Amino acid sequence: MNLADHIRTIPDYPKPGIVFRDVTTLFADARAFRRAVDELVQPLAGAKIDKVAGAEARGFILGGAVAHQLSAGFIPLRKRGKLPHRTYAVEYALEYGSDAIEMHHDAIRPGERVLFVDDLIATGGTAVAAVDLLRQGGAEVAAAAFVIDLPDLGGAGRLRGLDVPVTALVSYPGG
Amino acid sequence: MNLADHIRTIPDYPKPGIVFRDVTTLFADARAFRRAVDELVQPLAGAKIDKVAGAEARGFILGGAVAHQLSAGFIPLRKRGKLPHRTYAVEYALEYGSDAIEMHHDAIRPGERVLFVDDLIATGGTAVAAVDLLRQGGAEVAAAAFVIDLPDLGGAGRLRGLDVPVTALVSYPGG
Repeated sequence: MNLADHIRTIPDYPKPGIVFRDVTTLFADARAFRRAVDELVQPLAGAKIDKVAGAEARGFILGGAVAHQLSAGFIPLRKRGKLPHRTYAVEYALEYGSDAIEMHHDAIRPGERVLFVDDLIATGGTAVAAVDLLRQGGAEVAAAAFVIDLPDLGGAGRLRGLDVPVTALVSYPGG
Repeated sequence: MNLADHIRTIPDYPKPGIVFRDVTTLFADARAFRRAVDELVQPLAGAKIDKVAGAEARGFILGGAVAHQLSAGFIPLRKRGKLPHRTYAVEYALEYGSDAIEMHHDAIRPGERVLFVDDLIATGGTAVAAVDLLRQGGAEVAAAAFVIDLPDLGGAGRLRGLDVPVTALVSYPGG
């Protein structure tokens, strides 16, 4: 099975000139979804992972499945103001302006090994902020795993520069 | 294990007089998360489920895990304007105003058996809209499963009135 065959390409979304990679078609296919989860956890065979952290919202789908596969807990990293209890927050730059992600202050016990999961890594803004947030919470960030990498945008390289091993299943050079 | 022990209660959130039931503490606990998924799928033993549909955003976490457990595909039901391809939409009333959820027009093949999953059912606004949306898409809605039921708000009863069997793991009479 070629996972890339299950990813839908939508030209000019969300704006002209952008090619959007739609993973919902992969998630909807039972065999492709299971295969993606298996391949994401394969490099971690034998490693102890206490928790999986996923970024809102598509990272929740994949993160829930990966946490289940690893028999780990799941930690949601959410946009500002969405978590009901006390949080840590990290801001990160967008093309215009900035955004923030938050995590509950008690989501992690010091030293727990956490896997960060998201559907796609591009410039890595969210992922780098997530690593910062997890480390603030006392986590050892064991690895980061993505279905899709857009390598020309450099996000995976930024994560490796932070000593986070990166797995990605489908790569689109050129975007 | 008592799953209710893993649900955090936050008084006066999001506004005074409301008691918020926070499932993130349950999701973060590996054993409680796995137990919840096991109990949610237990009534479906032997039933064929083609796809699990989850509502944005906490329903994605649980839905991803349940889909993985059932070796089913996953369908995201999202807020207006979040899905990149052509959608069906269903509007539903809120306390003030209305909201809508959307599903990709090709997420379901006619006759597929779908399980709807969310963290909590209260008045059932989202869940009833989800059932309507799934049926518009040609699904047979096999069941709906929730971690938490607030039975006094009547949502589970509304779903049963639509011939959808309902499972809920923790019930809070009185809210």
